[in-house]
Formats: sequence, C-alpha cells, structure tokens
Amino acid sequence: MTESDLAVVKLTPGRWGDPAQVVEVPAAALEALKHLGVRRPPAPVSPVPRAGAGDDTIALLEKVLGAEYVKTDLETRWAHTRGYSTPDLLRHRAGDTTDMPAAVVYPGSHDDVQALLAACSEQRIAVVPFAGGTSVVGGLAPQDTQFVAVDLSRLDRLVAVDEVSRTATIEAGVRGTAAEALLAEHGYTLGHFPQSYEGASIGGYAATRSSGQSSAGYGRFDQMVVGLTLATPRGTIELGHAPMSAAGPDLRQLVLGSEGALGIITSVVLRIRPRPTERSFEGWRFESFDQGLAAIRRLAQDGPLPTVLRLSDEAETAINLADPDVLGGGSGGVLAIVGFEGPRTAVRRAEVAEVLTAAGGEPVGEGPGETWRQGRYRAPYLRDPLLDEGALVETLETAGFWSALPALKARVTEALVSSLSGQGTPPIVLCHVSHVYETGASLYFTVVSAQTDEPVTQWRKAKAAAGQAIAAAGGTITHHHAVGTDHREAYVAEVGPLAIEALQAVKQVLDPNGILNPGILLPPRLNATR
Amino acid sequence: MTESDLAVVKLTPGRWGDPAQVVEVPAAALEALKHLGVRRPPAPVSPVPRAGAGDDTIALLEKVLGAEYVKTDLETRWAHTRGYSTPDLLRHRAGDTTDMPAAVVYPGSHDDVQALLAACSEQRIAVVPFAGGTSVVGGLAPQDTQFVAVDLSRLDRLVAVDEVSRTATIEAGVRGTAAEALLAEHGYTLGHFPQSYEGASIGGYAATRSSGQSSAGYGRFDQMVVGLTLATPRGTIELGHAPMSAAGPDLRQLVLGSEGALGIITSVVLRIRPRPTERSFEGWRFESFDQGLAAIRRLAQDGPLPTVLRLSDEAETAINLADPDVLGGGSGGVLAIVGFEGPRTAVRRAEVAEVLTAAGGEPVGEGPGETWRQGRYRAPYLRDPLLDEGALVETLETAGFWSALPALKARVTEALVSSLSGQGTPPIVLCHVSHVYETGASLYFTVVSAQTDEPVTQWRKAKAAAGQAIAAAGGTITHHHAVGTDHREAYVAEVGPLAIEALQAVKQVLDPNGILNPGILLPPRLNATR
Repeated sequence: MTESDLAVVKLTPGRWGDPAQVVEVPAAALEALKHLGVRRPPAPVSPVPRAGAGDDTIALLEKVLGAEYVKTDLETRWAHTRGYSTPDLLRHRAGDTTDMPAAVVYPGSHDDVQALLAACSEQRIAVVPFAGGTSVVGGLAPQDTQFVAVDLSRLDRLVAVDEVSRTATIEAGVRGTAAEALLAEHGYTLGHFPQSYEGASIGGYAATRSSGQSSAGYGRFDQMVVGLTLATPRGTIELGHAPMSAAGPDLRQLVLGSEGALGIITSVVLRIRPRPTERSFEGWRFESFDQGLAAIRRLAQDGPLPTVLRLSDEAETAINLADPDVLGGGSGGVLAIVGFEGPRTAVRRAEVAEVLTAAGGEPVGEGPGETWRQGRYRAPYLRDPLLDEGALVETLETAGFWSALPALKARVTEALVSSLSGQGTPPIVLCHVSHVYETGASLYFTVVSAQTDEPVTQWRKAKAAAGQAIAAAGGTITHHHAVGTDHREAYVAEVGPLAIEALQAVKQVLDPNGILNPGILLPPRLNATR
Repeated sequence: MTESDLAVVKLTPGRWGDPAQVVEVPAAALEALKHLGVRRPPAPVSPVPRAGAGDDTIALLEKVLGAEYVKTDLETRWAHTRGYSTPDLLRHRAGDTTDMPAAVVYPGSHDDVQALLAACSEQRIAVVPFAGGTSVVGGLAPQDTQFVAVDLSRLDRLVAVDEVSRTATIEAGVRGTAAEALLAEHGYTLGHFPQSYEGASIGGYAATRSSGQSSAGYGRFDQMVVGLTLATPRGTIELGHAPMSAAGPDLRQLVLGSEGALGIITSVVLRIRPRPTERSFEGWRFESFDQGLAAIRRLAQDGPLPTVLRLSDEAETAINLADPDVLGGGSGGVLAIVGFEGPRTAVRRAEVAEVLTAAGGEPVGEGPGETWRQGRYRAPYLRDPLLDEGALVETLETAGFWSALPALKARVTEALVSSLSGQGTPPIVLCHVSHVYETGASLYFTVVSAQTDEPVTQWRKAKAAAGQAIAAAGGTITHHHAVGTDHREAYVAEVGPLAIEALQAVKQVLDPNGILNPGILLPPRLNATR
C-alpha cells in the first residue's frame, strides 16, 4: 500500500480515524496498565443539546452561501465540535457541548470564503475554519464565544500542476490522502505524511506549520509552501512570486502558522516531487539514546540525510517493539528508524550506513523499518481503547537546539513524572526524536498513566508542568502541533509581549472586528464578537 | 587565498571597495565602449557642505552614547552618505549632499542601541542604521528627512560559538570578512559570500535577505538565521528557541528583510559549518542559455547540488570570458560555473558531471572556474572606472519560478533595451542565473550603455521599465538586493495594499513615532519625524 492508496477517511466525532479500522489494546499492554492502577471510567454520555445559531445569523449565512450549505443539525455540529486532543476526546465522552458550533457552513470557493468573512465581520459573527478537524491543541474551540464552523471540505481541487517549476496549486480543504491521490495522477508527491495524515488537510497543514514523518527528506510543510492565498474580512492577500525574495519580510511565513486568526488560507502553491520508485526502511540499534542522538546529529549536520530519521529512547524502544528479540534478545539499547525514498536510494543508504556504523550503530534489518512504516498512522487509533480502559494517554512535543536537547528531555520527563505522581497516578513517559535540522531537533513525548476522576484537569496540570519545563530549558512550546488555545499562554511568554502586540496589530488590520478564531493563537481582544 | 584571509576593508566613499586595489578597464572593453557612444562625463565635484544636527540633538546623542561616539564632521558624514548603487555613485560624483546624515553615532552594544532608539523616538529624531553601507537600492537614504546615521561597526563581536548545535551568535556590525576570520579561529565558516562581501555586514545581510555566491550549497542568509535580537523604540524582541517551531508565524522571517524599518537587528544566531578542506571550481559549456537552464534545473530539482552554480547567457559569456578559446575557439555557447566545497567533493562532483553531461553540457576544465573564483568580488571595482569613462553601468536582479524564467528574461531585456535606446543610448544587456531553488531561480542583469547628460534620470527610467517588465512577467522585484527606496513602489504593488497596511501596523507598534528609516521599505507615514 502506498501513501496515496489510503482512502479519504470520514472521521468519527470523538474517536480517532476510520471506524472500520478496529484496534484492540494488546494483552501485554492491558497487563502493564494494571500496574499503573488503571480502572474503567464512567461510560460515555450523549451530548447535551445546545442552542444553535439565531434566525438572523442563519438567514445571513444562507444568503451568502445558499441554504444547502448551511447546516444546524446536532449531528453535523457535534461532528465539528473540537479536535482530537485527549482532553477533547474526554470532553466528547462526557457529552460536553460547550464548544459546539452554532452552525456549520460549507463555502465552495475562495470567493465564497471571502464573501462569508466580509458578511460575518459586518455582523460580528465569529467564525472558526474547519478543514481536517484534527487539531490536538484546542485550535477549533474558541473560548466563551458562539461561533460558526467554516468547513472547507468543498475546497477540494487540485487547481494546477506546473511540471517545469514542480509546483502544485491545491485548495485548503483537500485532505492529505486526497492530495497524494490527485498528485499521483500526474506522477508527483508532496511527501508530507504527519500522523494525522488520514484526516488532516492542506489548509490545516499550512495554518499550523505541520511537519510530517518524512521531514528529513521532504522538509516541513512550511518549507513546501511557495505561494498562498488568504481570505480576510478586509480582502484577499496573494503571496509568492518566486521561491525566495528579498522584497521585504517573507509574509508567507507570517501567514503560515497564523492558525486562522489572521484569515482563512484558501489555497497554497506547493513544491512537489516525482513519486519515488525506490523505498527502503530499516532499523538501527544504539547502546543508548545519547549515542543514538549523536549519530543522528552527524547525519543532520554533515549528511547525507535519509528521508525518514527517528530515534526512540530506551522506554519507547522497550514498549513499542513488537518483538524485543530484534535488538538482540533483551539486551536493551534504543531503536532508530532510517528510511529512504527517491533517487539514489541505494547509494544514500550505503553512505548513511557508514556514518551510523562509525557512530556505534548496528543495523537490525528491514523488519523494524517495515513494521514502523506499516503502523505509522496507527498509534492514534490505540488512544481511544486505552481511554476506554481508564488510561490517560496523551502526547506533547517540543524542539530545541542540539546542545539543549538532553536537559530539555530530562526536565520535561521529570515535570510529567512529578506532576502525575503528585496526583497519585505515576506515569510511563516515552520519548523520540522524529524531525532533525542542522542546528537542532524535535522531542516527542508520549505519556501513559491511570486516569483520575477528573482526567481533563489531571492532564491540564501535567501539561502545564511540562510547558514550564520546556520554557525553563529554552525549547519552543511546540514543534509541529501549533498553539491553539492550549499553548497560548506559553506562546505569549515565548515570543514576548511586544511581538504579540505586533501580531495583534496585524490582526486588527485584517480582522478589525475580531471574528476570526477569537482566542486561538492570540489572546482575545476587548472588542469581542457577540 | 581563502575567503577568511581577506582583510576587513575600509571602503572609499563614492567608490567601491579597497582603494589599494586599482582596477583598470581592459583595452578591449574601452574599444567596445566607443561603439556605444561613450564620452567622458564632467569631473567629480566636491560635496556641498550641509547643515549638521542641531545642538539639542547633539547634546541628546552625547548624553546617551558619550561625546566620543557622536561625529558631526563633514568627512564622516560624507562617508555615511547613501550606498553604492550607480545613481548613488553618480550623486557622489556630483557632490550631492541632499541625503547626508546630520550626524553619525557609534553605539557599542545592544543596550546602547536600545537606549539610543528610545531617546530618539521620544525626541522624534530619525535614525538610519548603517553597518556595511553597501546598499544598492537606496536603503540608506530616507527621503526629505534630516536623520542620524547609526554606524554599527562597534558591534563587532563573535559572542558565542555552540559547536554541538553548530551555531554562532554574531553582532550586527561584523563585516562578512571579519565574521569568516573570527569563525575560522574555531574551524567554522558561514559560507556567505555575496559580491559585497568585502564591505557588507552581518546585520545588513539579515536586514536585507542577502544571498551569497555559494547559496546552492550554503543557502541564503535568511536560511542561516536561527535566532535574532531586535532593538526597537518600544523595547527588545528576542526570537529563536529552536531551528523551527509551530508556535505561531515565524517572526524571525518578519524581521529578516525589514531593512531597519521595524527595528535595528543587533545580533543574530547563525547556523555555521566546518571550514571546507576540499574545493574545486570548474567550467561547463552549453549550446545555449536554454539548454544550460534546463541542465541546472535538473540539479536544483533532483540533485545533487554543487556549492556554487551559475549560468551566464550568451552575451555575458561572450563579454566576460578572458579567453574565448575556452569554449572551443569562438564556437559560441554559454558558460556555467560549478563549484564544490566540503565533504564528499569528489563524489558529488562526479555525480553532478553525470547530470550535466546527460543534459548536453561539456566540461571545459578548472580554468574558467578558478578565473571566476579569483575574480568573484572584482566586478564592482570595474564600475567606477567605467563610470569615469562615461559609461552607464548598473545591475538589477529578480527571481521567479522556473516556468516563468524565459519570459521574465526576455521581457526585462526588452524593457531595458527599449528604454535606453529610446533615450539615445542603446545598451548591452547581460544576464546570469546565480541562485537556484527546486521551484525557480534568480536572474541577474548587467546593463552597459553610454551616459546621457543626466545619467541618474536616464537609469531611473530604464529601471522603472525593467520593474514593470518584472511585474508583468510575474517575478519578484528583488531576489537579494532588498527594497530600500528604489523598489518601494514596486514592492507595494507586489504584495498588495492590505499586506502593506499590516506591515505599517507592525511598524506603528514597534516604532510609534516613525523614526526608523522613514520611507525605506514602507511608504512614509503622516506622523513623520522633524
């Protein structure tokens, strides 16, 4: 199965992924959970009906888009309620509808979005763009605001392919899987495969600075964008006349990561590459995470870079390996996954092997590589049954410069262990590196403990402790999950109040009535929507 | 001679480069100029003395920085008058002092700059940061404003080297040559070698999104910056906790290219690399520019990339080659320069040769490569004696996506020929590609004609025609020369009025009294300085 063979999945509200794909918690994992004190939580509760949009609002939306593209039924609204963080899933299970949209609208073009924003701005109706809906940072849940969800799924076109420049113009509502299928017809790929790949969309990738599992070879999504079109309440902005320019600040990079707070990205021009004909994924064993980190740093700094480069720490290696014998019969150590796609795979593979061997690595064959590749989108599926069992399971991530990473990892782990143990639920904390740069890398943590009686509060406390540890160790609050509402305070602290004031001024120009994603990314303003 | 062996050069006001390096126009070139109708222009005129800063202003500046760091003598002010565009040089020769600073100050630290900006903002004294002083776009000449030049040459420290993360923190006033010398002591290089290398500074590189001749291997300067410190009238902004982040827009990319209009960059954290031990430069011949363009596009899109990759068109190839026999005895064709530095030079060179050969290229040996390498900073030296002879000689550059480049080149050439011929001075127009990306490349034009009696106006008209051609062909108004005052109108048209309004709002927050580089990059505001 290639990436583009994955069907476009209709996600289930409140549970990750394709409902047809049933995932069961392995027996060994269930056994391990018992040691964490996991108990079955209360059964899920049906959502509490909540008032929808008023007649005036509905009439306005219908006037702009047509009645068939305005939905107010509970099922549609529930399916557009929040994203897929663990607190989101827990709130869904509790039937919590406090952040349910008042209506869901379906614009079909850039002009539709532009007209919608102008009309909503005039009437001060808050709007929240909803593309894949896979936010894990509260990016779809403006606080204390009635809002309309703008579902971008009708913006589903591959608009143009420029084979000479190797660019493709793709609309914002195209899911990652659909984008790959559309590009495959022309022989191209984006090479962007985040764990949310089955659900997330092009517009969401751009608005949140997504980074995929093949980022070592294909780069981050923000590095693929060479042009974009932004609809704002004040009008349209089109950017990107060349790959790079010295004509002022790179305003594309001001829009990328703006999370719908400055406008709605309706299409992007993306760098594309020929579909790879060769591929190989293999496992490498290192004695320790530190040794593995030094080895992958060599590749990141001196090359050559594989397409996929990941390194699990000791805990993640021990838990995630289906077959512990693969690292030599319980001898410990850590596992790296090294993947290659595209031209000169064999040559690059041999060169990488030389570097990794010199750095103390031992090849453990294609088995672990293929196991990882085939399961690369499966991890989020495991979360729902684990939550059903009473486990608290969530991930968080950061990035820093290489010299800061050891302390960053230690401090975040310590903060999570300390916070959750202090709440009576000692956790297991796993960590891996999955995105590397010449000057640094990401760290991705997975946390598992028993749920307390108030698991949303429980995680909020643990997450706050982790965020403080990240700041103290000099890392960034998020490498590829974005800010949303969950990271907003940490974000303000990270860039400082003057930079936030500058961004607020940009928002004031583009969104003078503050209707766009109020409270997401930036602190809410006083002139809030009704 | 390696790059870091170049001494830090004290530039001559009004003439490019190290006065010790005398460059004469080759006899063949003088002969060619006669055919263009070149006549000796009037002799240079001494600068007209112009009123300096008032006593209140001087007292204020001395209070903030100390009397020894405030200069008002004519020589110092003249040396800080404008940059090195051809109109700048012509105005210097005409003794024009209309854009001479009222005083020149020399802060010695970030805190000095911060205090200076706060004080000048309070008193509404316009300031223009001056680091290398090598702008070729009017970036040092605010219009209709008395101003103080802020010479950053005392911010001359290599602050820190992080060998694990491969980053260096360098102050804004460090010249390119000095940065290389300082890093060489630690075994590192930036790899940033623009033609202005002998004069330009780290802060200028950052503020203008400079791109060096080795950009294929080392990237643009804005791609090297992982952190920065910006002094603004409202306070300090520090950015960069990780190589990349999903925490909001990439605000580093808002500061890079802001050309002193949003604040003064006082230091940057840069990605560094080990100094190369291997190096080779070689020439390749192609039948035509189109064939060569297709060949270098192959390398840019499918790799491997050399460190230096340049392609001259037919006209530039014919004029610039010292020895026409190098391309096979007057058989025509175009020359590409392909350079390699760093690890695996031999392997990469062989792989590149395979690609270029398959694309129709013929290797013409290391001779042309070494000739280019040794003369890589010499071209600007030739401009002064050519101007002295009565030639108008200037360069301009753009970039676009690959599919747009042929029309972009044709339209700009046609616009230059048409404008200058229409003024009675038919030009020679040369072009090369010197910066490549997966999705596009830069085009760099050199124009030579006879001067009219009003050469500044003559060039302004030709440049305007070229700018219109760039816009019509979908290119960017500048790939690596920045906006300054010369490109301001074209820049506003390129990004659109709404984006400009957003940038003006950022400026209003950071520089509420509009003292920073008024009229540079952004149109002047109403609340102008005194």
